Parts: sequence; structure tokens; C-alpha cells
Amino acid sequence: MKIAIIGGDGTGPEVAAEGVKVLKSIAKIEGFADQLDLTELDWGGDRYLKTGEALPADGLDQLRQFDAILLGAVGHPDVAPGILERKLLLDLRFGLDQYINLRPVKLFPGVETPLKDKGPDDIDFVVVRENTEDLYCGAGGFMHKGTPNEVATQTAIYTRKGCERCIRYAFEYTQKRNNPKGKKLTLVAKTNVLTTGHDLWWRTFNEVAADYPDVEIDYNHVDACCMWIVKNPEFYDVIVTTNMFGDIITDLSGIIQGGMGVAAGGNINPEPGGVSMFEPMGGSAPKYTGTGKINPIATINAVSMMLEQLGQSAAAERVMSAIMYVTDTKMKSQSAGKMGYTTSEIGDLVLDALA
Amino acid sequence: MKIAIIGGDGTGPEVAAEGVKVLKSIAKIEGFADQLDLTELDWGGDRYLKTGEALPADGLDQLRQFDAILLGAVGHPDVAPGILERKLLLDLRFGLDQYINLRPVKLFPGVETPLKDKGPDDIDFVVVRENTEDLYCGAGGFMHKGTPNEVATQTAIYTRKGCERCIRYAFEYTQKRNNPKGKKLTLVAKTNVLTTGHDLWWRTFNEVAADYPDVEIDYNHVDACCMWIVKNPEFYDVIVTTNMFGDIITDLSGIIQGGMGVAAGGNINPEPGGVSMFEPMGGSAPKYTGTGKINPIATINAVSMMLEQLGQSAAAERVMSAIMYVTDTKMKSQSAGKMGYTTSEIGDLVLDALA
Ligand SMILES: CC(C)[C@H](C(=O)O)[C@@H](O)C(=O)O
Ligand SMILES: CC(C)[C@H](C(=O)O)[C@@H](O)C(=O)O
Repeated sequence: MKIAIIGGDGTGPEVAAEGVKVLKSIAKIEGFADQLDLTELDWGGDRYLKTGEALPADGLDQLRQFDAILLGAVGHPDVAPGILERKLLLDLRFGLDQYINLRPVKLFPGVETPLKDKGPDDIDFVVVRENTEDLYCGAGGFMHKGTPNEVATQTAIYTRKGCERCIRYAFEYTQKRNNPKGKKLTLVAKTNVLTTGHDLWWRTFNEVAADYPDVEIDYNHVDACCMWIVKNPEFYDVIVTTNMFGDIITDLSGIIQGGMGVAAGGNINPEPGGVSMFEPMGGSAPKYTGTGKINPIATINAVSMMLEQLGQSAAAERVMSAIMYVTDTKMKSQSAGKMGYTTSEIGDLVLDALA
Repeated sequence: MKIAIIGGDGTGPEVAAEGVKVLKSIAKIEGFADQLDLTELDWGGDRYLKTGEALPADGLDQLRQFDAILLGAVGHPDVAPGILERKLLLDLRFGLDQYINLRPVKLFPGVETPLKDKGPDDIDFVVVRENTEDLYCGAGGFMHKGTPNEVATQTAIYTRKGCERCIRYAFEYTQKRNNPKGKKLTLVAKTNVLTTGHDLWWRTFNEVAADYPDVEIDYNHVDACCMWIVKNPEFYDVIVTTNMFGDIITDLSGIIQGGMGVAAGGNINPEPGGVSMFEPMGGSAPKYTGTGKINPIATINAVSMMLEQLGQSAAAERVMSAIMYVTDTKMKSQSAGKMGYTTSEIGDLVLDALA
């Protein structure tokens, strides 16, 4: 079980350290400590400032040797915004063909949501975001740049292969998730306006659906979906959506499940030999570096997702139970600096709960 | 004051009728009844089913003769989704060059928000959405359509002129709004991913800002903005954004201000002689047609916005006060069927409050 740890920038390494602590502990408990092989990689903003590269030239090849990657956070105050996000995060997603962005949205017990009258039973769905196409392809250009006549374009490109593999994953996931309230997959797009790109998604969704007759299907326009996530999150079981809309929906979902301190996601290449990457949803929060104020629960949540992906379901569940015990009975809040404990004390509480 | 009333489909005509009732009443009270000249146009789904056209061939020319348009709702159960939205709503926006979509987001007193611990002082901002460009231009196509190799594209096109006029409007609006908490305009985009299209927006925003030194400027990525709207709506004064992201943000904002029953928007052409169109945010809700269950407050809110645009500020404010009196002291809920009154009774309550 070869795992690469990319702490990244700011408080990224601190939360990653708590993830590693939990990983080592659960490996001992579940008896796979001897298989665990962790490698820390110092990729990120500091490296970029020194060398002009966020990762080495053979970085992707190096990563292909691992079974999974745990990422802390990306974003350095001295590097122009956008550069590290693209050179590290997006290049890894695309380069390793991590075509699924998986975001379980679950309100853990004891965690506060900004929504009235909604509890853990109401906020419990999963977003499957396509992770390699759409407006993220970087296609676009300028004409008459810098003049009053300037025109700029940005093209979303979608392929049948790209949307089908994502939609199929979402159907399989919905089947496996087997929600007792009913297996339901909702496509979120904007077919009434994106009449070419989302027509492909629409057709593919309906065709693939025929292979999964036990899954109920539904469709929401993205604007309506954002309303329902706030008003009736209990409507959802699994959502499948495009890269750009998924970016928006997963952040909105992150806030209703309690925010950056708890939300985690997986960038998944589900093919045999595929290397997947797991990350807390929060940023690098550079101003908090070294203060012990950042919540590591999101990273530990990412570790649980990683264990699941690596086939260690029992370990994954055990970590998840420990997280829920800690959020429910120990922590004052999930917000930075208001937890009632430091970053590493929260990690220790999870270890205690695991034991 | 020549005003076109397009009731549209489903419950659209019913809510439009309440808007008209209020319009006639306030005109009498404020002494401009003799100037009011209303024309009802039967454009929409029924017409489309009979003639194949949602509006007559010279429809846009007809509308150019008016000072403003009040729209009920668009969407007919027997017409494939997307058609009427494009043939009526979007064609009018583009054809009449209504390049601003203005969405005041205000929690009226007595109205319930799905957010915890947020009141009317917290939810009080305005979204200025560009309304004629972006992914809404319809540019896109297919290759190898219907095969496993299919590729579909959808292109967002932005022009300097298009974004500058919208951004400038937003700065002027922020100045005039003159928020006692501080004049602040936030650009919402995705500059780290849409590196061409939103680079134009970013540059234009910063250049235009120089002309408005009294307005504080800020920037949010769209995904972060959706989080803050839910977590800290009080952060915002005015938001300016692109058409597609604006579509998402305005619906999200609509739900936190109490939903479809109250939210209204203006499609504004601010040029001299420009014809603007005002609409409640809700859909045509065909299943409720004739039941008297739909909330007309959103439409009456749209009427207030229309009066403001027509230079009748005193009348606009008076309608707004009447709305707030009714939501605060009379209505049980803003949801369809739960108001404690029928559609037309709510209209009557507003008339009483005006008197
Ligand atoms: C940092 C940014 C490029 C990234 C994205 O847009 O995908 C982030 O918002 C996310 O959702 O992981
Ligand atoms: C009906 C649809 C085309 C429209 C849009 O996307 O603009 C609607 O959602 C809106 O916001 O007015």
C-alpha cells in the first residue's frame, strides 16, 4: 500500500500530518501496518518559488508508482492565484485521469449546519462530479485583446467517453450505496441553455439509465438544484454532474455539511491500476500556518475515503466512526480556532476513539 | 406609461393580474392613472401550440413601442422543456438588449429564510447579472454525433463592450445604493479556471474600478461565493457576475430570501428608450392553475421594480412598504397554498395597505 503524501502549502502539511497519524494508527489496529509504505513529497508553492516548477518534470510518472495520494492543500501567498491550482491540482487530476470527483455530503452528528431544521438524516447525499472535461479543458482565446473590440472565448468540451464513464460510475455508485430511502440518481445540468454540450449529457444519461432499471432517475437544472440543496437536501441520494457545475455544487454542499473543517473529496481513477487522490476541501489558509487552529477532521475524512478506495472497508468505517464520535462528543465547533482543541489534539482524540 | 403585460403560461396570468391590480391602484393614489396605458399580450405556450410561434413575427417590434414589460411566467406542460424559455424569455432579453439582470435579494420582514440566525439585516444585497452573453450565446456543436466518439462543444463568448457596460452599471448601482455598511462591489467569476473569458472580466473590472474610487472592490470565485451566500450573506452589498454564474447565484439567493413566492428580477436595458422587462422568479407551476394557491408577492415586487425603473420612485417605495406590511403582519407563509389567503386575497391585502 504505497501512499504519496503531498502536504502542499500553508496549513496543508499540518492537516496532512494528522491524516498520516490516523492512517498509521488504523493500519496497526487492522493489522496492515507492515504493508503501509508512506512517501512525503515536498511539492507545492515553496518548490515553485525556488525552481519554477510545482512538481518535478517526472512528477506524474513518480505518482503512477503509488496506490493512492493524500493531498493537504494548495495555495501560496507569494504565488499568483491560479498557478498552483492549475500546475498541481488540475494537472494531477488530468494527468492521472482521475475522472471522478467524489464528494460524499454528510452532516456528522454534533456538527452544525447553517440550515434550519435539518439534521444528519436530511443531509446525506453524494455528488459525483466529472473531473477531466468541460470548461476545465483550457480551450479559449482572445481577439483584439486590450481594445474596446476585444472578444474572449472559453469553450467547454465534452466527449461521449468522458461523460459516459462518469455517468456509469454514478449509476454503479447509486446501486452500491443502496439508500434505504430509495436508489435515486439526479442529473444536474442546464439542458435548456447548453443545448449542445448538455444535450450529450442528457442523451448519455438516459441511455445508460436503461442498464440500471433499479435506479430511479431524475433531472434538475443547476440553478434549481442549488435551491433544493438549501431548501430540501433530503431530496437527494446521488447527484451526477459536469465539472464546472460540480465545482459549484460541491462547495455549496460543503457548507451545509458543516464547512471546510469537515468536507473531503476524492479524485478517483477507478480503472485497474488507477491512482486516486484524496483531499480535504479547505484551502491552505496560510495565515493560520503553525497556529494549530485548522480542523484536521476533513483530512481524516479524506483518509477514510482513501482506505475505502484501497479496499480497506473495515478500516475506512472504523475511521469514520471515530470521526463521528469526536465531532459528536468532543468538539465545540468545526470552525478554525473554535474547536476547543488544537489541530493535533483533534488527531489525538480520533486516535483515542479508534483504540 | 405604456406597459405590456405578458401573463404567459400556467399560473403566470393569475399572478400578473395581481400585479396589474396593484399597478392600477398605486397609479390612482400617486396621481398618474391617466398616463397608465396597459396592453395584455397572449404570448406563450398556448399560442405556440396553435401557431408554432411563441410570439408574432413582429413581436420584438411591437414591444419596442412600450416603456416596460411585466412578465408572468413561461413554461407549458405540452411544450418540450427549453423551447418557450428560449423563444420567449431569452429572445426578448437578447432582442431588446436587456443586458442587465437585476436581482435585489432582500429578506422581507416576516418572511422565513432556510438559514439559521439570519434576519432582514443580514440578507440584503443585490446581484447584477450580465444578461446577453456567455454560454447563453448558443454557440456550440457536435462531431461524430451519436457515436462512441462523439464530441460536443459549448462556447462562452464575452466581449469587452458586453462586460464593461454591465460592470459599469454595477458600479453606478453600488454608488447609488449607498449602503450605510459601506459601498462594496464583489466580482464573482472563476478566473483560476476560465483563464481567457474571465481574464477579460477581471481586467475590465479592475480598470473600470478606477473610475469609482469610493466603491470598495472584492473578488470571489463562484464556488466560494455560493458558500458565503449561505454562511455569511451579510458580507455582500452588490455582486456583479457573468450570465451563467449569475443564473446560479440568483436562484440560490432567491431561496435564502424566502423563495419563489417573493423573489423578483428585472431584465433591464438602461439605455435611453430601452425597454425593460420585470418578472417574478417562479415558474408557471401549471398544476396550480386556477387554484389561487400561488403567491403574487413576487410579481408585486416586480411591479415595484418596474415603477422604480420608470422613474416613479415614490410609487415604487410605497408598493414595497405595502408588500412588507403584508408579509410581516398578514401572511402565514410565502409558500404556495400555505399563505393563509388566496392569490387574489393577497393582492387585496396589498391594495388595503397602499390605501
Ligand atoms: C482550486 C480549483 C481549481 C478547484 C476546482 O475548481 O476544481 C477547486 O475549487 C476544487 O473544487 O477542487
Ligand atoms: C428559464 C431559463 C432560460 C432562465 C435562465 O437560465 O436565465 C431562468 O433560469 C432565469 O434565471 O431567468
